[in-house]
Amino acid sequence: MDSGSALMQQQMYGLSGVCDVGCWKKGRVARVQRKVRLPRGQNLQCWSNRPMELSTSVSMKVRAVREGMVAESSVTEPRNGAHTVPAGLRIESTPTNSYIGYGYVDEENFYRERFVVRFSEVGDRGTMSLEMLASLLQEAACNHVVKIGYGAFAGRDDRLITVTTRMHIEVDRYPVWQDLLEIDTWYCTEGRNAVRRDWTVKDVKSGEIIAFATSTWVMMNMDTKVIQRITDSIRAEYAPWARDPPIWALSEDRIKASSGRIPKINGDAEFQRTGLYPTERDLDMNQHVNNVKYISWTIESLPLEFRATHEIRKITLEYRREVQKGDTVESRAKAELGNNEDSRESSEERFIHVIRNQDGQEINKGRTVWTRLE
Amino acid sequence: MDSGSALMQQQMYGLSGVCDVGCWKKGRVARVQRKVRLPRGQNLQCWSNRPMELSTSVSMKVRAVREGMVAESSVTEPRNGAHTVPAGLRIESTPTNSYIGYGYVDEENFYRERFVVRFSEVGDRGTMSLEMLASLLQEAACNHVVKIGYGAFAGRDDRLITVTTRMHIEVDRYPVWQDLLEIDTWYCTEGRNAVRRDWTVKDVKSGEIIAFATSTWVMMNMDTKVIQRITDSIRAEYAPWARDPPIWALSEDRIKASSGRIPKINGDAEFQRTGLYPTERDLDMNQHVNNVKYISWTIESLPLEFRATHEIRKITLEYRREVQKGDTVESRAKAELGNNEDSRESSEERFIHVIRNQDGQEINKGRTVWTRLE
Repeated sequence: MDSGSALMQQQMYGLSGVCDVGCWKKGRVARVQRKVRLPRGQNLQCWSNRPMELSTSVSMKVRAVREGMVAESSVTEPRNGAHTVPAGLRIESTPTNSYIGYGYVDEENFYRERFVVRFSEVGDRGTMSLEMLASLLQEAACNHVVKIGYGAFAGRDDRLITVTTRMHIEVDRYPVWQDLLEIDTWYCTEGRNAVRRDWTVKDVKSGEIIAFATSTWVMMNMDTKVIQRITDSIRAEYAPWARDPPIWALSEDRIKASSGRIPKINGDAEFQRTGLYPTERDLDMNQHVNNVKYISWTIESLPLEFRATHEIRKITLEYRREVQKGDTVESRAKAELGNNEDSRESSEERFIHVIRNQDGQEINKGRTVWTRLE
Repeated sequence: MDSGSALMQQQMYGLSGVCDVGCWKKGRVARVQRKVRLPRGQNLQCWSNRPMELSTSVSMKVRAVREGMVAESSVTEPRNGAHTVPAGLRIESTPTNSYIGYGYVDEENFYRERFVVRFSEVGDRGTMSLEMLASLLQEAACNHVVKIGYGAFAGRDDRLITVTTRMHIEVDRYPVWQDLLEIDTWYCTEGRNAVRRDWTVKDVKSGEIIAFATSTWVMMNMDTKVIQRITDSIRAEYAPWARDPPIWALSEDRIKASSGRIPKINGDAEFQRTGLYPTERDLDMNQHVNNVKYISWTIESLPLEFRATHEIRKITLEYRREVQKGDTVESRAKAELGNNEDSRESSEERFIHVIRNQDGQEINKGRTVWTRLE
C-alpha cells in the first residue's frame, strides 16, 4: 500500500440523502452520485491516492488522516466502536492483534479481517466445521459491505435485491481451536450481469492459505423474481470498490476442476433426508434463511457413518430459489462416478446433491468432494 | 489495577512437568506445585504486586514486563498469537479495540474479553439470541481457563472431572449487531465442595451491564460418577486464581428472586417436544454435548407462537446427568403459577421445565421467565 495515501473517514449515522463523491482510482477520477442511507454503526470510508473531492447534501463529520502518521486523537470515536479503522493503531499495532475485531479495506480493494477460532466453533474432531468456516466467510463479507457502506441498499429503490446464484468453497486444511485466521474478501465484475465475491483464508502462523471460496451474485427484482441486467448506474455505484482488474481466489487448476456441470438427480438418489425445515434460529436479520443452513442440509443427506470417517474438501452449491419460512425440504444425494479421472485425485469421493421443497421445486443443486480421515 | 505491578508471562508449548510457583497475592506468598501440561497455544500467566518467584523443572521462556512501560518488543510472539496479552498495546490502545480477540486476567482475578456481535449471531428480531449469548459466556470461560493454564487438567490424575450442576442467566437487554460487548468472568469458592463461576456482560458504548450469569461446578469421579469433596490440594491448585473474597455477578435481589426451588413435573406437562437428539455438530472437542444445546432444548418445548411474541429474560438449569451421544431426549414444560407475586413483575410469565432421556432419567430441571415483546 502506498504509505503516502490518505484515509478519509466520514461518520454519518441515521442519515439519508444524496452524496456526490469523486474519488481518484488509479489516476482517474471516478465520480458517482450515491444515495446514502446509513443505519446505526455504518460508516462510509474511501481510500484514495490523493485527497478526495467530496460534496454532500447531508451534514456529516469528515476526518482526513494521512497514513504513516500516528493520528489516533484525530479519529472520531464511532458510535459503537466496532467498525472504524483506527488509523494510528493499524500502524502501531503488533502483527498478532491487527485486524482482530476490525476489518480493513486495502487500497487494492480487498477487505481483510482476522478471527481467532473459538472453542464453540470447533467440533468433536478438534477442527472447525465447514459450516463454521462458511459462517466466518459470510461475516467478513458483511463487514466488508458495512465498511464501504455499500451493498445492503444497492438499487433498493428499483425493487432490486442481490442474490447468490453459486457458492464454491475448497478447504485444504481445517483450522483448530485458537488458530488465528486472516480472511481476505473482495468483489469484481463477472460478465455483464453478475458480480463475483471471492475469499481466501490464511492461517496466520504458518502463512499458508488453507481455504478458498468464490460466489456469484446477481440482481433480482423483488416482485417479479426476474434477474435484472446490472445497469451502468448500478455499476458506477459499486465500481470504486470492485477489484479491477478482476482477481480470482482460486488458481486456474482449481477453477477448471470445479466448474463441471452438476448433473440432475431424478428418481435415482442413493441417500436422502426428508422433513428438514428452517427454525427461527436459522433466519437472519433480513428474514432470510442463513446461507450456512443450505450447506448443513446438503451435508446431512449423506450417512452419518460416512461423514464420521470422511472430511469434506470441496462444496459447490447452485441456488435456484430461496427456502421460505414454513417450507419443509428434502435433501438427496448420489455418488458421482468419475468420468474425468485425470483431473481428480483417486482418494476423493464425490457426490451430487439436490434440495427440493415440499412442492418438488428445486432449491439448489450441489456437488461435494470428500477425502477419508486418517 | 496497580500500575506498578509486573506482568510475568511464560510461554510453554507442548510441555509437561511440575512447576513450582510462588506468587504474591495480597501481600502474602501463595506457593503451589502445579502439574503443567500445556497443549499448543496455551500460556501460563500470573499477575503479582512484586516480581514472581518461579522455579520449574521444565524449560520455558520467561518474560517479565513492568506495566506502565511500552514493552512490546520484549514480549515474545506466541506460537499462535491468539492468547497472549500484548502488554504494551494494552496500555497504548484505544478503548474501542483493547481486549478484542485477547482476553486479559486482571490482578483482582477476573478475566475480561471483548466481542463484537457478529451478523451470524443476530436472529430475525435483529437481536442476539440467548443461545448465542450463552455461547459467548462459555467462550470467555474457556479462554479464562486457557489464560491461567488451569482447569482443563485439574485433578485429572485422580480421575476427576469438573461438571456444572447449575447455570443461571439473566438478560436485561439483548445486544444487536455490531454492539461491542465486554464480558467479565471469574470463579470463587462456594461452600466446601463447589466452585462458582460468574459473568457480567457490559454494553461498552452505554457502559451498562446488560446480562448477568452464575454457575456452580463440582468435581466428579469419571468412573463412579460420584461427586467428590474438593481436597485441600485441589483447592491450593486453583486458589491463586479464585476471586477472594467471593463476589457475585448478581445483586442480592436477583439472587433471592432466582433461588426458589424448581418443582417437579410429573404427568402434568402442558407442553412437550419429543425426539430431540444431539448431532455431531452439538459435540465439543471433549465429546460433550455443548451446554448451549440444553438451553435450546429447554426453550424449544414452548410453542412457537409464544416464543415469537415473547423474549426470554431468565433461565435456570439444574443438571442431573449428561446427555450421551445416541440419546434421544424429550423436553417438557408447564406454566408456573405465581405463589410469590410480591417478588416478581406482573408482566412476567414463568415456566418450569424438565428434560428426560429415553430411559425416563432426568437430564435437567429448569425455570424460564419471559416478557412480552413490545
